[in-house]
Amino acid sequence: MPYHFASRMQTTPRSFIRDILKTTERPEVISFAGGLPSPSLFAVEELRAAAEYVMKHAGESALQYSTTEGYLPLRTFIADRYKERLSLSVDPDEILITNGSQQCLDLIGKVLLDAGDPVLIERPGYLGAIQAFSLYEPEFHTVALGNDGPDTEELASVLGKHPSRFFYGVPNAQNPSGVTYSDAKRRAIADILAGTETLFVEDDAYGELRFDGKSLPSLRTYLPEKTIITGSFSKIVTPGLRMGWISAPREIIEQVNVAKQASDLHSNVLAQRIITRYLEENDLDAHIERIVGEYRARRDLMLSCIGESFPADISVTKPEGGMFLWVTLPDGCSTTTLLELALCENVAFVPGRAFYVDGGGDTAMRLNFSNASEAMIVEGIDRLGKAIRRLVG
Amino acid sequence: MPYHFASRMQTTPRSFIRDILKTTERPEVISFAGGLPSPSLFAVEELRAAAEYVMKHAGESALQYSTTEGYLPLRTFIADRYKERLSLSVDPDEILITNGSQQCLDLIGKVLLDAGDPVLIERPGYLGAIQAFSLYEPEFHTVALGNDGPDTEELASVLGKHPSRFFYGVPNAQNPSGVTYSDAKRRAIADILAGTETLFVEDDAYGELRFDGKSLPSLRTYLPEKTIITGSFSKIVTPGLRMGWISAPREIIEQVNVAKQASDLHSNVLAQRIITRYLEENDLDAHIERIVGEYRARRDLMLSCIGESFPADISVTKPEGGMFLWVTLPDGCSTTTLLELALCENVAFVPGRAFYVDGGGDTAMRLNFSNASEAMIVEGIDRLGKAIRRLVG
Repeated sequence: MPYHFASRMQTTPRSFIRDILKTTERPEVISFAGGLPSPSLFAVEELRAAAEYVMKHAGESALQYSTTEGYLPLRTFIADRYKERLSLSVDPDEILITNGSQQCLDLIGKVLLDAGDPVLIERPGYLGAIQAFSLYEPEFHTVALGNDGPDTEELASVLGKHPSRFFYGVPNAQNPSGVTYSDAKRRAIADILAGTETLFVEDDAYGELRFDGKSLPSLRTYLPEKTIITGSFSKIVTPGLRMGWISAPREIIEQVNVAKQASDLHSNVLAQRIITRYLEENDLDAHIERIVGEYRARRDLMLSCIGESFPADISVTKPEGGMFLWVTLPDGCSTTTLLELALCENVAFVPGRAFYVDGGGDTAMRLNFSNASEAMIVEGIDRLGKAIRRLVG
Repeated sequence: MPYHFASRMQTTPRSFIRDILKTTERPEVISFAGGLPSPSLFAVEELRAAAEYVMKHAGESALQYSTTEGYLPLRTFIADRYKERLSLSVDPDEILITNGSQQCLDLIGKVLLDAGDPVLIERPGYLGAIQAFSLYEPEFHTVALGNDGPDTEELASVLGKHPSRFFYGVPNAQNPSGVTYSDAKRRAIADILAGTETLFVEDDAYGELRFDGKSLPSLRTYLPEKTIITGSFSKIVTPGLRMGWISAPREIIEQVNVAKQASDLHSNVLAQRIITRYLEENDLDAHIERIVGEYRARRDLMLSCIGESFPADISVTKPEGGMFLWVTLPDGCSTTTLLELALCENVAFVPGRAFYVDGGGDTAMRLNFSNASEAMIVEGIDRLGKAIRRLVG
């Protein structure tokens, strides 16, 4: 029988990666399309020991219902780490634990967006955020991302025309572009937003995965009352436990709490306890250093292979962190077309169009380097080079 | 600074239990307000062994990102159990794993409701559903619940006036009333809905917690293409792992999948694996039998204490399952006022008003019996009897 679905379902984009899953799952395909961390870097034994400890010493409470805001020792750990790493004063009560940071985006949409509200995102922007916000039917506006962050002139101009509920951005090692905002850009964005009612939503999934240079201040430093930060253990500990968090001014967190409770009561208690125990018993900095060392080597290898295999008029970002490279072909080339040729060569990526709400981005593509071995990078980039030469030649 | 929140936040009711948490957390208070299963019945050791097995044998995949629909062996177990228990033919692809069944309600709201759409719920209705659906700003309509289910005359009449997207109900041991729909009511509801575009959302959180008599057919039996079922391991295994599921016709599940991905990508992988391993290695039926035996005894004890302590003109349901009794005081008595007196006696419950969207229910209250020891039931009902006598005398 025909079903009637809510109108929001018609405007919510599907996952590109899901659409090509049947193809990329073939064992002969090398996929740079996903956004997975390398499972060989998971601290499996340490997390097993943490799970064992929790089940032995706090089994009943780990298995019972709990509070919506999440486990206090975990929120305290996160608050302390903000203090240490970024000199941010965050109270544990200004933090709420979520099912991965993707859920933060859903809760932000729920709490802040009425249908038709203007929202600002980067161009290119994170597909998951576009999906999450789309469910609340906003009017998307975009700001171009350069090598050191958003175009602030465009930002001021778009904001003047479309007073947005918030500007959503990924200042550290952005997905998909790999761009990190310079400190000057951060200050300039804060100056522009300060005079408006627009909040800044800082998605910081990759801030701790920094290969070069040192961490730059959070926008919260410059805009304390107007910055919502979303964080995640997915890239630094494990994504399978779906542990993220949102940090925001108390008044916003209270609304997020109401929305979270209505959405799923609270996050997995056992997982919160396991992560907490793991963090108490292990050296997270040392673990992150291992991940960073490995990902830096993969980035460098992929860049050097691209230098050898791709035509010279192709540009590529050199991200200071994260998991992605952003490759731009010469004008007139379509990565949507390229993908078909690439799949014939058994290699996959995500075409740039998936990261644009306005149909742009067709000359660009996103390549993931975190979940590919050395051999896969060498072979995969070689195959992709062949596909590009077939496209342009 | 003043923040601007989405209008949906103004109409979403807060959790009553959260509001009185500070009071009920005092150690001297006996609380019948919550809806917690008894933690002494959790299979802690068996779940610990399951966690240990999963981390030892499938650590990397349990910690990695996974599919939105959830772990296939778990969906297969659920499908097989529908076949066994209720003779329902459900394909694993018609099941999607959620963060507890509360998330099913959020996803159903997302996928089916535009603002202003009419929605039908029971009177009294489950507060968590009212909260979840409120975020999608529907127009609530209600149908009175009698001792054997909804008033079908009222159902037909309300539906005629307000063609609703769906009718949400809890046919087995309803929360808050404890009522189980008779088979005749189930057939009558199906007959009424068959001629409309209204779906039936069957919340079956308590179906396996049946103390008396045998399971009645799901509405799916009578309305196969129009019934969405939500299920949960919270009451039969553990709520802390937040494991629920939604079962619906394929076309609806596809939309739910898009909404789930945008909302939080997928459910906790480790938890899905732990539950699956637990179910493979243990006798769920025997475990449920233990829970049922214990809860039946608690129900009977609470009913007998009520018989001794409460004035004779007070009525109380005798639920065939679940976790709650529904007590109705004589006309003119207010359980909102009673709660103040009860808290002075150090005993708590949820006043009936929390379960009404129209301000009704003030003579009723919900009492939870699953999470109270014998001693707490005896003492708590005695205290509540005193408070009632102070109110009516």
